[in-house]
Amino acid sequence: MGDGMNRRGFVATGVGLAGALLTATRLPASGRGPQLGINGDRLLRHHRGLAEIGRTTAGGARRLAFSQADQAARAYVTELMRGAGLDPTVDVAGNVIGRRAGSDAELRPLMVGSHIDSVPEGGNFDGPVGVIAGIEVAQSMEEQRLRTRHPLEVVVFTNEEGGKTGSRALIGEVAARELQLVTASGLTIGDGLRAVGGDPDRLDGARRSPGDIAAFLELHVEQGSVLDTQNVDIGVVEGIVGIKRWSVAIDGFANHAGTTPMDQRRDALVAAGELVVTIHRGVKELPGRQVATVGRIDAQPGAPNVIPGRVDLSLEIRDLDMEKIDVIFGEIRTAADRIAGETNTAIAFDQFYESRSAPTDERMRDIVERAARELSLSTLRMPSGAGHDAQSIAQLAPVGMIFVPSVGGISHSPKEFSWPRDVLNGANVLLHSLLNVDARNWS
Amino acid sequence: MGDGMNRRGFVATGVGLAGALLTATRLPASGRGPQLGINGDRLLRHHRGLAEIGRTTAGGARRLAFSQADQAARAYVTELMRGAGLDPTVDVAGNVIGRRAGSDAELRPLMVGSHIDSVPEGGNFDGPVGVIAGIEVAQSMEEQRLRTRHPLEVVVFTNEEGGKTGSRALIGEVAARELQLVTASGLTIGDGLRAVGGDPDRLDGARRSPGDIAAFLELHVEQGSVLDTQNVDIGVVEGIVGIKRWSVAIDGFANHAGTTPMDQRRDALVAAGELVVTIHRGVKELPGRQVATVGRIDAQPGAPNVIPGRVDLSLEIRDLDMEKIDVIFGEIRTAADRIAGETNTAIAFDQFYESRSAPTDERMRDIVERAARELSLSTLRMPSGAGHDAQSIAQLAPVGMIFVPSVGGISHSPKEFSWPRDVLNGANVLLHSLLNVDARNWS
Repeated sequence: MGDGMNRRGFVATGVGLAGALLTATRLPASGRGPQLGINGDRLLRHHRGLAEIGRTTAGGARRLAFSQADQAARAYVTELMRGAGLDPTVDVAGNVIGRRAGSDAELRPLMVGSHIDSVPEGGNFDGPVGVIAGIEVAQSMEEQRLRTRHPLEVVVFTNEEGGKTGSRALIGEVAARELQLVTASGLTIGDGLRAVGGDPDRLDGARRSPGDIAAFLELHVEQGSVLDTQNVDIGVVEGIVGIKRWSVAIDGFANHAGTTPMDQRRDALVAAGELVVTIHRGVKELPGRQVATVGRIDAQPGAPNVIPGRVDLSLEIRDLDMEKIDVIFGEIRTAADRIAGETNTAIAFDQFYESRSAPTDERMRDIVERAARELSLSTLRMPSGAGHDAQSIAQLAPVGMIFVPSVGGISHSPKEFSWPRDVLNGANVLLHSLLNVDARNWS
Repeated sequence: MGDGMNRRGFVATGVGLAGALLTATRLPASGRGPQLGINGDRLLRHHRGLAEIGRTTAGGARRLAFSQADQAARAYVTELMRGAGLDPTVDVAGNVIGRRAGSDAELRPLMVGSHIDSVPEGGNFDGPVGVIAGIEVAQSMEEQRLRTRHPLEVVVFTNEEGGKTGSRALIGEVAARELQLVTASGLTIGDGLRAVGGDPDRLDGARRSPGDIAAFLELHVEQGSVLDTQNVDIGVVEGIVGIKRWSVAIDGFANHAGTTPMDQRRDALVAAGELVVTIHRGVKELPGRQVATVGRIDAQPGAPNVIPGRVDLSLEIRDLDMEKIDVIFGEIRTAADRIAGETNTAIAFDQFYESRSAPTDERMRDIVERAARELSLSTLRMPSGAGHDAQSIAQLAPVGMIFVPSVGGISHSPKEFSWPRDVLNGANVLLHSLLNVDARNWS
């Protein structure tokens, strides 16, 4: 597993680091105008400040959407927005939106944003990096008296980890029954929205129409190991992969493990083993960047001395191309029929989840790529295997996404980590991309 | 799956059946003395009577050792013993022992027995068949004024399903700390023993020495499908297989299922799948009647969108030959090392259970086999894959075991079933075997 230290040939030695990194990212000249860069020390300070809220003993984050920690983090970030010259409000979906006027009142806003809520045992980079960098970009522009033509909106989206409630409210996708779901915080989504200043009864008020937003940019940590392993600075995201998930039920016959000869067994776990291995091998060998995962398994009755009669497992397939997901599933299904025949079991698939893939805008990819190169940063075009708020906004506006490396690809863990230098690189790419997006007309 | 109907070409039509079957089993003459047989109607009536106690809505049995149902069943069986001319007492291990004097006061007792407790969702054949038949054998001898030379003991062993407490007390194997274990009834074994009239503080009082028992016979349902599938009437048990069990821990690395490329995964469940399949195939292909089972599996963290970083599973191997178990385990371990290397995981085995194999006595096998043949019943020599009280007693005396077919091999289930004809065949083989055992001198 690669790590940032070797990759960049420096050793992190505390306080002095941020300054050194900042200097490094300031050196390359942006294609447009002044020697522009964000304030790296301040960004890292703000990032550390946010990390103190909901900090766990393991050094990770527990900021479940709607929890006390989430509410405290929202208050903290709202204050940062004010300090950055943004005018924060909370919409009915609980999204914190910090606005900054543009020079041309006719233009629709450019939006940047991400989230600050975490999974139960999360880290400090998944989400916060994009929010803190967005605020820093605004503050840097404010200090450097740089006004964009378009109005700017820096957004903290509500409950990303628990179902992208905030960004999906912008596209009118949050159904009434969804508001009844109990989240990890213990509150329903509806009650949670009330707790953070939203209004679940008027959720349509958060909705935007296609064209209401000129363009959207999200900076995020990769959450995978591709950039880290390949020693690349910036990921230019081609889109957020589509996801399909199935419940798979394997029915064999539970029987006494001592008295049932091997050749008379209908062992559902043996069938499951064959299936898991076949899925892994088959999907790995296909050309492309598709992934398939069996993450959950349950064997019944589950005693050491009883042959499993029933196994339930999950299957998930992800790819940028929804049709390819279907083709892969078809092949898995064929293999499952063969396995069922060989093991004298029955294997049934029940799809329970689908998330359509969301390609980024080709123009946005070019802008991000160019901004990175002008900062002398290496780039790689890649899919995002994880879901992001950007995928909701893609239904309303051209979106672009910027990835920075995650050390070891560790994600949704207290051990999740990105080097400060990479975070600052990402923020600078966000700033320069935003300026280039602003320079363009989005009709 | 075979079933008794096809095997014997008759249709079960209720009340008339037992009589017809009984007639059939009475026809063949025993090699020794009179036209001897048990009273099949009475045996089936007693069996049905016992089945009413702890009967579940599914038609199975819930007679957990030490529970109210177990206590009621013990009272019922004690009454049957009295009616059969047996003199029942309860030893300090809670075993109900029905004694009948022999004609030679110098001889040590012959013992027959089994159990009447059940697993939580059990059936009405595993255990009760041997107990009810033992009592019936005594009652038939009483009615036919047949006195054995040896004293006879018909025993209901305590808590077979929860650890063979009663029979293991006879060999002094029940340790003090075992008495603290909480059983499925909610009582500790110690308190349970008190509840059924035993005395856990004086458990040594139940102990017998090698030689104290002349010989032991247990009639039991096969709990497997071998006799049913091969259309054989009586199984002549070669011994109770040995068992070893391991906890298997597979450590990979939990990571995001969307962002971790297939070729960079350390998926503990893929390793587990390979292992389960390899164990099943390998053990199936070996010559012999060994079995190996993975019955329990747990994958963590267990979410559809997270690659399993850790899998825990159980491995159990059974065979009559303890050394063969070790050889098989060695091969599994070698395969596991290969799989761990291929999947970039670590696989560790921790043995947590061992039960030594207990061969039956060759003379007893011959006697059972001859008794069955004299009744024109087909026989098959076979191991018992399940544990039985006989395996404890094998440390004290020559033991023999008689199996009757289990339809479809179903065991530890409300669907467990043996045809009345097979139960009565078994009881008659028990009677005739016992008489032949009695005729012999066991020095």
